[in-house]
Amino acid sequence: MGELLERLRAGLPDGAVAVDPDVTGAYARDMAGFCDAGEPAVLVFPETVEQVQFVMRTATELRVPVVPQGARTGLSGGANAVDGCILLSLTRMNRILHLDPVDRIAIVQPGVVNAELSRAAEARQLAYPPDPSSWESCTIGGNIGTGAGGLCCVKYGVTSEYVLGLDVVLADGRLLRTGRRTAKGVAGYDLTRLLVGSEGTLGVVVEAVLALRPAPGPQLVLAAEFDSVDAAGRAVCDVMAAGFTPSLMELMDATTVRAVNEMAQMGLPESTRALLLVAFDGPDQRELLAAVGELCTAAGATEVVPAEDRAESELLLQARRLALPALERMGTTMIDDVAVPRSALAAMLNGVAEIAERHRLTIGMVAHAGDGNTHPVVIFDARDPEQVERARVSFDEIMALGLELGGTVTGEHGIGLLKREWLARELGSVGLELQRQIKAVFDPLGLLNPGKMI
Amino acid sequence: MGELLERLRAGLPDGAVAVDPDVTGAYARDMAGFCDAGEPAVLVFPETVEQVQFVMRTATELRVPVVPQGARTGLSGGANAVDGCILLSLTRMNRILHLDPVDRIAIVQPGVVNAELSRAAEARQLAYPPDPSSWESCTIGGNIGTGAGGLCCVKYGVTSEYVLGLDVVLADGRLLRTGRRTAKGVAGYDLTRLLVGSEGTLGVVVEAVLALRPAPGPQLVLAAEFDSVDAAGRAVCDVMAAGFTPSLMELMDATTVRAVNEMAQMGLPESTRALLLVAFDGPDQRELLAAVGELCTAAGATEVVPAEDRAESELLLQARRLALPALERMGTTMIDDVAVPRSALAAMLNGVAEIAERHRLTIGMVAHAGDGNTHPVVIFDARDPEQVERARVSFDEIMALGLELGGTVTGEHGIGLLKREWLARELGSVGLELQRQIKAVFDPLGLLNPGKMI
Repeated sequence: MGELLERLRAGLPDGAVAVDPDVTGAYARDMAGFCDAGEPAVLVFPETVEQVQFVMRTATELRVPVVPQGARTGLSGGANAVDGCILLSLTRMNRILHLDPVDRIAIVQPGVVNAELSRAAEARQLAYPPDPSSWESCTIGGNIGTGAGGLCCVKYGVTSEYVLGLDVVLADGRLLRTGRRTAKGVAGYDLTRLLVGSEGTLGVVVEAVLALRPAPGPQLVLAAEFDSVDAAGRAVCDVMAAGFTPSLMELMDATTVRAVNEMAQMGLPESTRALLLVAFDGPDQRELLAAVGELCTAAGATEVVPAEDRAESELLLQARRLALPALERMGTTMIDDVAVPRSALAAMLNGVAEIAERHRLTIGMVAHAGDGNTHPVVIFDARDPEQVERARVSFDEIMALGLELGGTVTGEHGIGLLKREWLARELGSVGLELQRQIKAVFDPLGLLNPGKMI
Repeated sequence: MGELLERLRAGLPDGAVAVDPDVTGAYARDMAGFCDAGEPAVLVFPETVEQVQFVMRTATELRVPVVPQGARTGLSGGANAVDGCILLSLTRMNRILHLDPVDRIAIVQPGVVNAELSRAAEARQLAYPPDPSSWESCTIGGNIGTGAGGLCCVKYGVTSEYVLGLDVVLADGRLLRTGRRTAKGVAGYDLTRLLVGSEGTLGVVVEAVLALRPAPGPQLVLAAEFDSVDAAGRAVCDVMAAGFTPSLMELMDATTVRAVNEMAQMGLPESTRALLLVAFDGPDQRELLAAVGELCTAAGATEVVPAEDRAESELLLQARRLALPALERMGTTMIDDVAVPRSALAAMLNGVAEIAERHRLTIGMVAHAGDGNTHPVVIFDARDPEQVERARVSFDEIMALGLELGGTVTGEHGIGLLKREWLARELGSVGLELQRQIKAVFDPLGLLNPGKMI
């Protein structure tokens, strides 16, 4: 321990090494509930690739575990400290190195905040689509680690679609360059995609080549009310089966709608059982929304209201963005993240409602309905151990339901500590064994974010 | 050898095992030039997953190498036999198992021909975008093996964007299921993407879950003539920098244009140095083509001709499709596949012209210009050893040039035998070592397509 600090201090700049337990403790966890965190030995803030290499070499020589961190906005405990670890914060490596409208790429350091990149791209009429709720604070490195998604995914996909190449410091300090700077390329095994979503267990991302897109126009939004979850699920399926690709297709249940109204007096229709928001960002928005509105009505919508203009659209989007903060005012929340086939969306929603009833808990539901990615939000009183236990059990039942419906235990939040056992169930024994062997190839000593993911 | 045949015959149906050298010899290579092929011991045509598992178990027990094959339309020798191997043809596993317009997925066996899937999708108003030139004969399994692309990629991306999940028989016969059937999901290391493009060196794909898209409308095409490659390259960059995303953006050089005219009397303008075809498949086609036409003119196009209607568009697309067959009439051809950043396209084209001149060879150029993916086609007389040697050297110089310009040695054709040494150069020592270790995880005995790729 003494040697570790001595060596880190000798090799890193002043102010890059913190040991005060008040400071290191503040960095010991991300935003996940139900996850333990260990006591870190030290917190470091490298500013260069070489410094990251130095930290990893030192960690390897002294056999000290390392937990890489971004902004710690994660929801699965992936960035939580393990006992005696080096917390490796990448937040000071926060420069956009290159932004090219011809090749439509950005080259960035891992600590760049998602919103900063998005704004820099926007200034060049470009967009970096992945837009997790935490986009104002989460980092690109963290997004890459978790394979983050967002509201845009039904049309634009998740983070992995946008990562073309990576510079990665391996456990032993060697630098690996993967992928490419070209629009196209298939040379060798795709280590880039293997690293995206690997939650800091295979290496430390120190630079990323990201694909950008032309900036989409503003969205025009339609709101459709349904008096049953089945009707809303049917509408989602009908819209997708008819060949529409909305830029956003979000669902909020009655609990969520009421919570948003209480928080912000939005005047959303409280009698609804499911509120569906559908948006388009391209040409012919009004025609497309009209056609989608008709499909919603045919599927049983009780009311269909297309926004008149951009301001009305923005209000509806704002309501959706308030969903989680609004639910958080109702108690301690545990947000789940289960993606099911679109066709199983209604079954998932009904099943979650049943779980809530059985365990006498409130479970709000927001869903990226267009891609079947549900976020059941279990609400409970953290001071009541018995209620906490019921919340835990509900959480597990929700995941079991997701798997039963042909889904996956994480659509965009990652595995971290929270879902490690569930990942093993989803992968099966052959898959799990291969994943563990791949982990051993990259990190034979098991020092990188140990105990996470697999 | 006797034991191998005996066991294969005992475990596979009648007609699934061929040993006649005339037959096995006919399956010994794909369509790549400059690549050797070994003598296979036996050729098998399994019809079920269990039969593939049986073949792999037998191969592992007897330590016999296995070369998986689709339609052998590949251009890098990836499907070429190695001495004493089992040629494992997946062509009889050719059923489309499921096609779902709501979840927008298809579940297919590996021997399904690309065009069959495309037509089945089209019948449901859906599309499977990857469209390699060989789409009428190549198989989905082969497309997955090589990470195949096509004309569509500038807008729709390559095969890997469309593979959601795989069933894979491992070297020892175990069955691995990767990925998901949901639109979204990030659970565990992305083995699906690791397997796409792995050219049969990690496992045998026996089933694939593929993403489909809504069928795009017909394309409207514009032809622009340039009197220099630089001007054409500038036009490509200007169009992309202005935020357009054409559904096709192809370039043919003077040699190619002349060859197409000779073959099919298309009446293409022979005075041009570079003919650029640009298409859109969505709404507002005429307006978009007009805007792109203006950018082409500003970049120096000598003539800009938007197609009047679908028939004229089809004629231009037909000219592009004839490019390779037309060049093949000029001699033995060796088609290369180097992707560079868009901004380096003109430099690549000029560099290739210089190489052609220096080696006194004709090198036709067709390029998926929109994504920087060039296909220099080296034309030579295979009966003249000295000319063959010059062709070989040119081929190497083209790849060296691609790497120098920040490109990759394969955009969509894979590595196979042809580019193994070049892949090593592109990956560097750290990357190569990791790739070899990953290969060893999947195939510790080195039986799967040995000597290919890495």
